[in-house]
Amino acid sequence: MLRSSTLTQSVTVTAVRHSHRQWFQSIPVNYRFCDAGRNSLSSNSAIFTWKRKASYNRNRSGMGTFTTRALAQPLKNADELIDSVETFIFDCDGVIWKGDSLIEGVPETLDMLRSKGKRLVFVTNNSTKSRKQYGKKFETLGLDVSEEEIFASSFAAAAYLKSIDFPKDKKVYVIGEDGILKELELAGYQYLGGPEDGGKKIELKPGFLMEHDEDVGAVVVGFDRYFNYYKIQYGTLCIRENPGCLFIATNRDAVTHLTDAQEWAGGGSMVGAISGSTQREPLVVGKPSTFMMDYLANKFGISKSQICMVGDRLDTDILFGQNGGCKTLLVLSGVTTLPMLQNPNNSIQPDFYTNKISDFLSLKAAAV
Amino acid sequence: MLRSSTLTQSVTVTAVRHSHRQWFQSIPVNYRFCDAGRNSLSSNSAIFTWKRKASYNRNRSGMGTFTTRALAQPLKNADELIDSVETFIFDCDGVIWKGDSLIEGVPETLDMLRSKGKRLVFVTNNSTKSRKQYGKKFETLGLDVSEEEIFASSFAAAAYLKSIDFPKDKKVYVIGEDGILKELELAGYQYLGGPEDGGKKIELKPGFLMEHDEDVGAVVVGFDRYFNYYKIQYGTLCIRENPGCLFIATNRDAVTHLTDAQEWAGGGSMVGAISGSTQREPLVVGKPSTFMMDYLANKFGISKSQICMVGDRLDTDILFGQNGGCKTLLVLSGVTTLPMLQNPNNSIQPDFYTNKISDFLSLKAAAV
Repeated sequence: MLRSSTLTQSVTVTAVRHSHRQWFQSIPVNYRFCDAGRNSLSSNSAIFTWKRKASYNRNRSGMGTFTTRALAQPLKNADELIDSVETFIFDCDGVIWKGDSLIEGVPETLDMLRSKGKRLVFVTNNSTKSRKQYGKKFETLGLDVSEEEIFASSFAAAAYLKSIDFPKDKKVYVIGEDGILKELELAGYQYLGGPEDGGKKIELKPGFLMEHDEDVGAVVVGFDRYFNYYKIQYGTLCIRENPGCLFIATNRDAVTHLTDAQEWAGGGSMVGAISGSTQREPLVVGKPSTFMMDYLANKFGISKSQICMVGDRLDTDILFGQNGGCKTLLVLSGVTTLPMLQNPNNSIQPDFYTNKISDFLSLKAAAV
Repeated sequence: MLRSSTLTQSVTVTAVRHSHRQWFQSIPVNYRFCDAGRNSLSSNSAIFTWKRKASYNRNRSGMGTFTTRALAQPLKNADELIDSVETFIFDCDGVIWKGDSLIEGVPETLDMLRSKGKRLVFVTNNSTKSRKQYGKKFETLGLDVSEEEIFASSFAAAAYLKSIDFPKDKKVYVIGEDGILKELELAGYQYLGGPEDGGKKIELKPGFLMEHDEDVGAVVVGFDRYFNYYKIQYGTLCIRENPGCLFIATNRDAVTHLTDAQEWAGGGSMVGAISGSTQREPLVVGKPSTFMMDYLANKFGISKSQICMVGDRLDTDILFGQNGGCKTLLVLSGVTTLPMLQNPNNSIQPDFYTNKISDFLSLKAAAV
């Protein structure tokens, strides 16, 4: 499979406001389409008329290039980085916490950044929780973070539907856990599926067919540990048979951290299954697609060059930052090690790397 | 997604016989690698050193071309086609039967072909049954077909393992139904998984990890209506963590005919899920990969140009025949209609098309 962080396609989607009848014919957001493995924002090709043009990454000097980026530099001057941006976007797992434990020095680092007037945003591809549920996790860990600062891919799915004026009389079929349902409910959408379908089985008899709701206009697929054939068939029927039905993925992460003890198959499994039966590629709203970045930039009115994305994964976090045109900082407190970063086969190079975010404090001190 | 029947890559795999310790380092079969959507024979890239070279289809005159094939012709002279080949390979569903009903005129057609000394072979991507179980289905429908004439993808999975001298002290983890287990057992392989894991659930607690058998050297994935997260995680662990573990797919069919009443999500779902979590592409042994075709040609010592592939699906059956360098006949008794064949967007053109295989009889009579 082709893997490249530097080869991208620019996708322009006409921003036309529309009646409910036309909601599936256009979407009002501009994206960059990232052709990096399958972790990409892709089209529901039967629905959207993408205007694709071959393009290539532009580095900050504005010079277009197909060559790989310069090798990442160890972060030496924290002040310089902090002063150069307005907003820090933090991935959570591997950056703020590991499983249920806070990473050393996080509260002090966040306090320092707030004291300097920096905007802090927390982004996670985990769709099993809603914003509110994440807020409780932050609280339990002793961190003072508001719901409005949290962007989970469960929220992104609902926000995406809002951004395209997905009609309120249509329904959403959910393959995923509770977080997606909660966010859809908050956004005022009708949904079905989710945990309720986890115990359902299909008993086949000659002539048997599964009925499905023809009002389903979008299937949202996220991580689902109660995934089963019933859900596969229901989602497949909606996408294949309901005209204009959207196929939205919260993320395509190969693995996730359900427990600290091992890596667990992630949302990429559930999305891969529905992609396999529908032969359609999903529209991904989580990292590394730029939907959340665009949403944040619009919501807070910030320039993307004023953002620094901080994460522990190259092919989601760092790519997400690079796709959005932000500065990027890799921390080695999660899944990526220095040898992985420096492996000649790795083409994803952040601007800087450091051990953990609290290095901001010691590197400030050292620079004084 | 790029779909083309004419763009292929030639894949040469060094045919080295090997000790058990080296079984995963080479495979003794030559393939053609088909880049048609995801229904392709692909490598476990970490394991095999494929020697790929860009190539393109050769038509029967030997002229290489990237252009689409000539439009399919209606079959007018059955005798000419019958006389030009030695072997007919029939897809089953949509060609021989539909669900549990025989298609009109099939027994007489098969009898006629046998009386003319033609070899008959029946190939199906359905892996839920073994050869023996398929034999019973033919018998129930009043057809005299021996087990040796039947090539289901369940059999292909076991035959593939034999062809690479997969060691008998290694184990196979099965995501799929009973047919695969039966074929593995007949071939003398140790296996685990299958229906037994259908009811298993994962109860997460902090620090919990799933143990897996380190002797698993291959994960075989086929259609599985009892698919669940336990199987996804078990298969993923084997492929990601057991050195050299193979990822074999019986097929990547998007949909299948569990009942006549509707199309059901097919083996492509289960394979897509494992591909999504492992970020590996499977080695596909069913149609349209050429493993079964190569196996048949070697077993019976027949030239592929002496084979006519008869099927009702363009992107599996007809592509399978074309990838193998065989003559191809599309029958309209299954899922493909004449407008679908003649749609300008369809690039897969068989040599001939006709309504059903018993047209062989009427077209013979008409030609006399």
